Amino acid sequence: MTNLTLEQAEGWIKKACAKATQLGVKVSVYVVDSGGNPVAFARMDGAGVLTPDIARAKAYTAIAFKSHSKDIAERMKDRPAAALGLTQASGNRVVFLPGGVLAKKGEEIHGAIGVSGASSDQDHECGLEAIAT
Amino acid sequence: MTNLTLEQAEGWIKKACAKATQLGVKVSVYVVDSGGNPVAFARMDGAGVLTPDIARAKAYTAIAFKSHSKDIAERMKDRPAAALGLTQASGNRVVFLPGGVLAKKGEEIHGAIGVSGASSDQDHECGLEAIAT
Amino acid sequence: MTNLTLEQAEGWIKKACAKATQLGVKVSVYVVDSGGNPVAFARMDGAGVLTPDIARAKAYTAIAFKSHSKDIAERMKDRPAAALGLTQASGNRVVFLPGGVLAKKGEEIHGAIGVSGASSDQDHECGLEAIAT
Amino acid sequence: MTNLTLEQAEGWIKKACAKATQLGVKVSVYVVDSGGNPVAFARMDGAGVLTPDIARAKAYTAIAFKSHSKDIAERMKDRPAAALGLTQASGNRVVFLPGGVLAKKGEEIHGAIGVSGASSDQDHECGLEAIAT
Repeated sequence: MTNLTLEQAEGWIKKACAKATQLGVKVSVYVVDSGGNPVAFARMDGAGVLTPDIARAKAYTAIAFKSHSKDIAERMKDRPAAALGLTQASGNRVVFLPGGVLAKKGEEIHGAIGVSGASSDQDHECGLEAIAT
Repeated sequence: MTNLTLEQAEGWIKKACAKATQLGVKVSVYVVDSGGNPVAFARMDGAGVLTPDIARAKAYTAIAFKSHSKDIAERMKDRPAAALGLTQASGNRVVFLPGGVLAKKGEEIHGAIGVSGASSDQDHECGLEAIAT
Repeated sequence: MTNLTLEQAEGWIKKACAKATQLGVKVSVYVVDSGGNPVAFARMDGAGVLTPDIARAKAYTAIAFKSHSKDIAERMKDRPAAALGLTQASGNRVVFLPGGVLAKKGEEIHGAIGVSGASSDQDHECGLEAIAT
Repeated sequence: MTNLTLEQAEGWIKKACAKATQLGVKVSVYVVDSGGNPVAFARMDGAGVLTPDIARAKAYTAIAFKSHSKDIAERMKDRPAAALGLTQASGNRVVFLPGGVLAKKGEEIHGAIGVSGASSDQDHECGLEAIAT
């Protein structure tokens, strides 16, 4: 287990927001640590009121399935019964939508970032950009 | 009702984990008794943070439907409305995914083991191996 | 409704964290707008895993009752049945604890900040400091 | 953040159960890591069907408040409104009862153990014994 600091999380958020600005979209960005617990979050001016909670769920989903939420969303696409069960088993903490990006440090999970407010592809892109080094 | 002891449950968990190690995967393993109540559980180092709750739901599902969760998952695959209703009626305790394996003792239900963290087939295989005598 | 910007929210968070550092405590700080919706949040390194959710509930409570959460907590202290009803009616979004501080702009509600992780008095003090001009 | 292994968790559980046996009581013992996520659990033969969930909540509570659950339970004793709000804010994951014991490694939180099934004092004692070195 690595230690994700607030400083790192805020750095990721800044990068995700910069990418969103470049794309001309307004998003919420949420960072969780390797245990799935919240570290930091920001909603850009003009982003929707529910985007913070969706962003959090996306970030948690990346941690829960140890993959980008885009990948697990793809696997769940035609399996509503399975998706439902996993959602309930998680206490409604997961969501099967792109935009949750897993960050690793070598082999270990370092944390995850969730982005919500734009298109699925754009959300995912902002997340990837945030953790790119 | 048969009596599933903690010692038996821990024996199952050890076998399921041994199988997972052999397959090169990291899983959580959860055992419930014939009443669907928890007996024991273990999360292998490196298994995801949500796998314990999914494993529990799989084990409970096997008890609830008196079959391997793989079989009921197959039956629910194209029936999201039915899956939803059953999930709600269970107080969100069931999940329609392979990996919950029912253990019988003669004709009687003895308990169930749920495995989560690998592919559906691997989860199921670990569960089967655990209760094989 | 006034417009609380992300920039202002992040300014409040910085001030609350600076006060916490001065007091030698680790807290989470959560800002919501006048609609009770999330704007930004930060968990200081070392603050507990549940403090973000508590901080959010405190901030929401300040908006919901148009007062510092300390005041409504005081009024609810010996009224568990009333507290229960309000909690349920809010969809479990309120918490009757000090640390949620209401920010006004003239007569209008501008937003609220919630702080969790230290003593009730310290949480409240960090919140007040954050919005002091 | 430290790494609590399954082997360590199982060692704690064995010790807690040994203490319970010595006291002549039947308990469930649940171990969570520093992020509040489950690691391992065991219900002794004869312990009640709800004790696993109570033990888990106690362990999570120790992590959430960075103290033995006995201490936070003491502080909440005459504050039902506050206890209610914290319970809801946690998604019903905390419980204000003795028996959740926090384990530290130097200054860092290492994990927590929750015990349920005997008297509050006995639960707490079993937990303390488990992590004693």
